[in-house]
Amino acid sequence: MSQTIKQRIAALRSLMEKENVTAFIIPSTDPHLSEYVAPHWMSREWISGFTGSAGTVVVTREEAGLWTDSRYFLQAAAQLEGSGIDLYKEMLPETPSIPAFLKSRLKAGEAVGIDGKMFSAVQVKQLKAELEQGAQIAVKSCADPMEVLWTDRPPMPSDPAFIHELKYAGKSCAEKLATLQGEIAKAGAEALLLSALDEIAWTLNIRGNDVHCNPVVISYLLVGKAGVHYFIQPEKVTDVVSAYLKENGVQTHDYSEIEAFLHSLNVQSILIDPAKTNYAIYSAIAPTCRIQEGASPVALLKAIRNEQEIAGLRAAMQRDGVALVKFLKWLEAAVPTEQETEISIDKKLHAFRAAQPLYMGESFDTIAGYKEHGAIVHYEATPETDVTLKPKGFVLIDSGAQYLDGTTDITRTIALGPLTEEEKVDYTLILKGHIALAMAVFPEGTRGAQLDVLARMPIWQHRMNYLHGTGHGVGHFLNVHEGPQSIRMNENPVTLHVGMLTSNEPGVYKAGSHGIRTENLVLTVPAGEGLFGNYLKFETVTLCPICTKGIIPDMLTKDEIDWLNQYHRTVYEKLSPDLDEDEKAWLKEACKAIIS
Amino acid sequence: MSQTIKQRIAALRSLMEKENVTAFIIPSTDPHLSEYVAPHWMSREWISGFTGSAGTVVVTREEAGLWTDSRYFLQAAAQLEGSGIDLYKEMLPETPSIPAFLKSRLKAGEAVGIDGKMFSAVQVKQLKAELEQGAQIAVKSCADPMEVLWTDRPPMPSDPAFIHELKYAGKSCAEKLATLQGEIAKAGAEALLLSALDEIAWTLNIRGNDVHCNPVVISYLLVGKAGVHYFIQPEKVTDVVSAYLKENGVQTHDYSEIEAFLHSLNVQSILIDPAKTNYAIYSAIAPTCRIQEGASPVALLKAIRNEQEIAGLRAAMQRDGVALVKFLKWLEAAVPTEQETEISIDKKLHAFRAAQPLYMGESFDTIAGYKEHGAIVHYEATPETDVTLKPKGFVLIDSGAQYLDGTTDITRTIALGPLTEEEKVDYTLILKGHIALAMAVFPEGTRGAQLDVLARMPIWQHRMNYLHGTGHGVGHFLNVHEGPQSIRMNENPVTLHVGMLTSNEPGVYKAGSHGIRTENLVLTVPAGEGLFGNYLKFETVTLCPICTKGIIPDMLTKDEIDWLNQYHRTVYEKLSPDLDEDEKAWLKEACKAIIS
Repeated sequence: MSQTIKQRIAALRSLMEKENVTAFIIPSTDPHLSEYVAPHWMSREWISGFTGSAGTVVVTREEAGLWTDSRYFLQAAAQLEGSGIDLYKEMLPETPSIPAFLKSRLKAGEAVGIDGKMFSAVQVKQLKAELEQGAQIAVKSCADPMEVLWTDRPPMPSDPAFIHELKYAGKSCAEKLATLQGEIAKAGAEALLLSALDEIAWTLNIRGNDVHCNPVVISYLLVGKAGVHYFIQPEKVTDVVSAYLKENGVQTHDYSEIEAFLHSLNVQSILIDPAKTNYAIYSAIAPTCRIQEGASPVALLKAIRNEQEIAGLRAAMQRDGVALVKFLKWLEAAVPTEQETEISIDKKLHAFRAAQPLYMGESFDTIAGYKEHGAIVHYEATPETDVTLKPKGFVLIDSGAQYLDGTTDITRTIALGPLTEEEKVDYTLILKGHIALAMAVFPEGTRGAQLDVLARMPIWQHRMNYLHGTGHGVGHFLNVHEGPQSIRMNENPVTLHVGMLTSNEPGVYKAGSHGIRTENLVLTVPAGEGLFGNYLKFETVTLCPICTKGIIPDMLTKDEIDWLNQYHRTVYEKLSPDLDEDEKAWLKEACKAIIS
Repeated sequence: MSQTIKQRIAALRSLMEKENVTAFIIPSTDPHLSEYVAPHWMSREWISGFTGSAGTVVVTREEAGLWTDSRYFLQAAAQLEGSGIDLYKEMLPETPSIPAFLKSRLKAGEAVGIDGKMFSAVQVKQLKAELEQGAQIAVKSCADPMEVLWTDRPPMPSDPAFIHELKYAGKSCAEKLATLQGEIAKAGAEALLLSALDEIAWTLNIRGNDVHCNPVVISYLLVGKAGVHYFIQPEKVTDVVSAYLKENGVQTHDYSEIEAFLHSLNVQSILIDPAKTNYAIYSAIAPTCRIQEGASPVALLKAIRNEQEIAGLRAAMQRDGVALVKFLKWLEAAVPTEQETEISIDKKLHAFRAAQPLYMGESFDTIAGYKEHGAIVHYEATPETDVTLKPKGFVLIDSGAQYLDGTTDITRTIALGPLTEEEKVDYTLILKGHIALAMAVFPEGTRGAQLDVLARMPIWQHRMNYLHGTGHGVGHFLNVHEGPQSIRMNENPVTLHVGMLTSNEPGVYKAGSHGIRTENLVLTVPAGEGLFGNYLKFETVTLCPICTKGIIPDMLTKDEIDWLNQYHRTVYEKLSPDLDEDEKAWLKEACKAIIS
């Protein structure tokens, strides 16, 4: 850990020489292709010093680069300073893709190294197609270089797994396994390999503490004719979990045995989602076994909430809303003392939530960014960056909790005092976009990509945009980001179904000035029958006042004002019974109807 | 022609027996996969009696079915009555696709017949994938059965081709061919085969009269290292055209020689758009020649208008608007006499347009549908259906013209007198959708599918929808429907570029009651620089008042009212100089600002 970034990269270059590769790609994932990873797999952070959740490092003999998305442009630029690593901003027209970069730097006959466990089968296929066919550059799957280079690498997580009770899950492990056996048969296969940690957790109704904020267990699961096989480190399997697994006919194996097991697997065909299965595992499958590629059936099953899950998430939203109201009331009083900082308010918010029943932790690290820090899309205050909040400008607070009965994710941008006209205009435009999406009604069969523009058009009309998605799926006491649905500019063929929980979070970020995002979670619900079939709509399930101080009422239409006032009536009606008189009075004021 | 539909189908079934196929598919196209075809290729109409522009007939031993889209649900149902042909409504969840239908009717080992000239290479590949791999049903390419069955089949069109002058085209044939040679080289090929008639017409600056309303010439064009080869019936090549082609280095060949020429083609590789090239032609390519599949480079080049074309289309819109105003003024006076019918007003509209300079004909058959006929999306009045217009309800008029300097396409829904509340609500919702799209601003790289929802959301919120696209590209004195861009619910990866001309035409159709559509053409223009790059917007270039009688002003936002009033100011300013005093007064009233 005392090595500098330059020394670490130099060490990797020596290893590259031995492996006979002229470049090496280090992504931000684990063997399960997770978005958030345990410290053991934070190789990209170790090699680059960049702490954001997303980014890929490419090291060649002479150069090193980090590719990351717009959430991290500012943070990455700051953290890479002096490291010798260049920043490549994704999604900007001038930025080359990683394969394009490699083609411009490497010669035909040279090779690029990867750790095959850190790339999906699809990614390796695409990489090979671009580099091998296009430019005669080989892609070589090497052993994990971090095993050699990262001498004080943290061990793999070893916390015990635990059962997610039926009263929260709504559907038993046995039912889910039976459904999956049906899906496997429908796909014409004999087995299904699950690698995605949230899919395994959902299937077995098992949770763990292996990944910060994501209650998953590092494991693989094979379901099929030949039984149900769970690959997990034995120290995680408590007696209770062991008995539960046996009861459900699940055989456990050591986590490290997956490759050998797959290599000797005696089934005719296996269903695998090549986008969710790492290349090394995929390549380990017995040659006699036909690989049937297809989307994992668990993704959609998991995303469509059952009644018990919906009841749970409503209860979780209620408790989360109570904690948020207590926090916001406290914040309003605390800021004028000029004693509170980004970090201190995060701690306070945490405490309010932790006091709620069924609380299990945060669903991600809180983003509390005051003024220009709000423009750093995934800002996380550190002692070095922490600032004192003053009674002016905006603080952007994006936070969420894990409750046993649901996962929350909410962003509020709070006016702490006077705002500039530009801040108010931007705030009102984002609110208009948020409301447009919240009010959407759409026929069955609609994809999130079709609705995305509703949230963006108000800021597009002012020549502004945000490069993150408008909406992501949210798990059920699981990962705060999940698929298969999304509401983004990019096409995603998955259609929205009744029971899906998705975020609605337009934002705008002005570097050095301010950042604004307003986020609620919305549940897809039926909207009745009409011309050509059934219609769906969103029910906003997050319960927390939207700060009205930044709103320019004249910029809102009557429908938008009606939506906001109705939302605030709902928030007040639902939360006030769980609040004391002072809190009620504060909430009443926060939820006061606005008029244009 | 005296045969009944049942007799024609019986004759096809006898032929099927000889060809040893148990089903036959007859689509609505020609060997160039045109949307609109010359009478010679109206085989689907001949076999079924259905006269709509889109639809596919499938005949099995016992059944016959017509698949068509929502525009034609009502018309097809009426025209198929008593024919023994079942109607399959596309895009409804209960409707099987044609391959699914065939799989449910045919057994493994049986075969489906097609005329390979009437299907693209992509379509045949997909059909084979679904039927051969999925169900062991063969797809057999047969000779055109109509050559035998259709004894009084009209001959191929033989009108002379003519030159589209440079002052209208803006770019010479030589320039375009040079650009294409560059595109071919860029794609790593040695030749490019063009089959799409509008792409050939654009490339050579040649027009014709071969397809009703579409000024194209039946031909193929091969461009590449081995020269430029134009396959066209010799009788179409006048001395003037012949000299022009020689001047541009274009060698002519008889139309029928294309297959033999391709079979003996001596180039290493040929760029072909497999979606625009028929299967028979595709299969004729010399086996020694590598086929490089890719989108035709002409599609995008043609869609992005040059300055001269833009000047031309503005001038054409001006003249079209003048004709439309004269017509609408006349209509308002004529309807109360109760002497006018759907057909008579179409003739009158035609006459007003024909009086304009550079007029070359209609760009499609006028749809003039009074009251419930407006709900038949592509209604064309016939002497049998024609009705007298009365001073109440809506008439929907969708019409367009071909001028030497541009193609127009406009729909207005005109209140002829009192309206029901439902008609007014629907009219206002469609106007809201139209305006939302017209006002859109979007970053470079935006696809039409992202913007489509803007036009639909107002009616979606009332549980209504339309199953046609919101916008199609429009040619330049060429086909009224062109790609590659579109504004539809379906994903289309083509992004919108400055210079593209696209329609904006939301609609709503209530069978037996009324139909409403409001259509203008919009030009994509720059909207300045902003966060993360350049922004684009639409400039509405159609000039014609939008009937304000159906509007419920309270349902419009201030921005929507502002847009409408500004549009009407522009229409009045641009058109009034070309109108007489009475017409000016009428237009002034029609363009009067509305207030909420």
